[in-house]
Amino acid sequence: MAVLETVGVIGATGAVGRIIVQLLEQRKFEAKAFRFLASARSAGSQIPFRGREYEVEELTKDCFGGLDLVIASTPDDIAAEYLPFATAAGAVVIDESGYWRMNPDVPLVVPEINPEDAFTGNGIIASPNCSTTQMVVALKPLHDAAKVRRVIVSTYQAVSGAGLQGSTDLVEGTKAALNGSKYDYKVFRHPIAFNAMPQIGGVKEEGYTSEEMKMVYETRKILGDDSMQIAATCVRIPVENCHSETITVETERPVSPDEARQLFASFPGIIVLDDTANGTYPTPAVCSGRDEVFIGRIRRDLSHPNGLNFWCVSDNLRKGAATNAVQIAELLSARWSEKLAARST
Amino acid sequence: MAVLETVGVIGATGAVGRIIVQLLEQRKFEAKAFRFLASARSAGSQIPFRGREYEVEELTKDCFGGLDLVIASTPDDIAAEYLPFATAAGAVVIDESGYWRMNPDVPLVVPEINPEDAFTGNGIIASPNCSTTQMVVALKPLHDAAKVRRVIVSTYQAVSGAGLQGSTDLVEGTKAALNGSKYDYKVFRHPIAFNAMPQIGGVKEEGYTSEEMKMVYETRKILGDDSMQIAATCVRIPVENCHSETITVETERPVSPDEARQLFASFPGIIVLDDTANGTYPTPAVCSGRDEVFIGRIRRDLSHPNGLNFWCVSDNLRKGAATNAVQIAELLSARWSEKLAARST
Repeated sequence: MAVLETVGVIGATGAVGRIIVQLLEQRKFEAKAFRFLASARSAGSQIPFRGREYEVEELTKDCFGGLDLVIASTPDDIAAEYLPFATAAGAVVIDESGYWRMNPDVPLVVPEINPEDAFTGNGIIASPNCSTTQMVVALKPLHDAAKVRRVIVSTYQAVSGAGLQGSTDLVEGTKAALNGSKYDYKVFRHPIAFNAMPQIGGVKEEGYTSEEMKMVYETRKILGDDSMQIAATCVRIPVENCHSETITVETERPVSPDEARQLFASFPGIIVLDDTANGTYPTPAVCSGRDEVFIGRIRRDLSHPNGLNFWCVSDNLRKGAATNAVQIAELLSARWSEKLAARST
Repeated sequence: MAVLETVGVIGATGAVGRIIVQLLEQRKFEAKAFRFLASARSAGSQIPFRGREYEVEELTKDCFGGLDLVIASTPDDIAAEYLPFATAAGAVVIDESGYWRMNPDVPLVVPEINPEDAFTGNGIIASPNCSTTQMVVALKPLHDAAKVRRVIVSTYQAVSGAGLQGSTDLVEGTKAALNGSKYDYKVFRHPIAFNAMPQIGGVKEEGYTSEEMKMVYETRKILGDDSMQIAATCVRIPVENCHSETITVETERPVSPDEARQLFASFPGIIVLDDTANGTYPTPAVCSGRDEVFIGRIRRDLSHPNGLNFWCVSDNLRKGAATNAVQIAELLSARWSEKLAARST
């Protein structure tokens, strides 16, 4: 079978990049060659992959020659500056950053929801924000069955969403708090140890933060429904990994908890854990390292006749980032193989 | 001026009881004598109060003789069993437990909201659940101005709400997690260190927990409005003290963020901290040890024309429990003094 020639991972040494590399190995992603790239700071370090060591190359504007597919996990400014050079060099790019997501020429893809969108656009395919991805997976089966009109979401977000330094800040800040000593946080505005911080990102329209507005705009784009009314509050809590969300939806017709449970359970990539009396519901501790979106506490919204409430947990580094990107890569790879196979007959 | 004769504190050695004792001292609560009571396990220990040591007496059914006013902070079963003996002995009882709150003969009082209710009933006055108290203080000025029709709340609750052992579980569980060792949690069903747990209390109607249903029923009772539609999700997070809440309300007419900010700021017991761009909003770290309800992140609910969103933090051991009870005691004491003064003229 024809396979991709060369795949590149940009940001391969970061919190998400490391998992992308692991997933490419574990999921036996097919390509003839792999290249791992990162900033000058990390260039030269070694990455073990499929039984050998790869040297990390420095990301430059002329590094993209020969790459067919690039998976990039970088800050927004790096994605803005470098990725056009990747597409100009002929690569298809799957981008984890926030920079390209709302560009009308860039599809925003969750493979369980809108896989066909991955084959449109200008060469860049965006993967959504972590807190959006798990929510939109949960919303999709409800939306298909009963049209979601309104969403109110509150997040409980892990520090790993702030990168490797986010995790270091939590661990070192917590040790300091337990010892009664001081720790100088590097990525958080306020101490995160034993605290909750209702701000993720800068302030955008009407006092909402960038993280909150991503949940509005990206959800509408992925579901292809600009009429969906969404309000989010995004909160950082002292959890190392996995975002949790309380989600309240209003649908066009009432969806009973039993129906919702069935809709969720039969949707790809969702696992229902819902038996509160026996202590069964998703928690970050249980969902970390998993690729699925977990849902529990499914119940009628007591405050609205067409309302439904539930609790949604997912590994923000995996389905919220690396897993979703690799799933998009798998979509492209399968189509690529088909095309090459068709050409060769 | 005439003052109360004898005041008793039941559960004086517990997480809330300790703060009640502190507040009676700090706020110079007037009475001729004080007695401190607790379970047999704690009886005999010493409590420092106003410059001397008091021996903790054992709570028994015949311990109430001579007490004019009792402030009780005990588990529900103890409140159910013992408090009727206190009222039978002639004491007025302020109860922190959940047992009596929804009894139609028992007023449920937040002094900023319904002080007159403290002078009704059968001798027991209930103080609300911690997560309810801070929310209802926030709702009251909005309700007075524009009638709150619907409330959706998600909580971020501290371990101190589970008593002294809750705090021990968090500290010891966190140390164990950092060391890679195991800790056997005493009061939490799942590990709380670096985790989030969407269950507080047992399961009640329609899959909601007891904590969630308290927020529904107690809020309606305190505000005297059974038509208010309320849905809550209560979540324990690894914070030592102070509950946080994301609150979405729908009001009969739209309330702008500016109007809401003014309504909140001019209501007794509320402090507004709301300048997200400069990192100003309440956090548990900042609000712990304070008696007020703190509100920030006030913004228009983007999902509803009459909606408003905000973030509310308060010390669950103080305004959520001890402070509210002592404020009720102060109400009673003032009226008592007036009555005694009237009688003596």
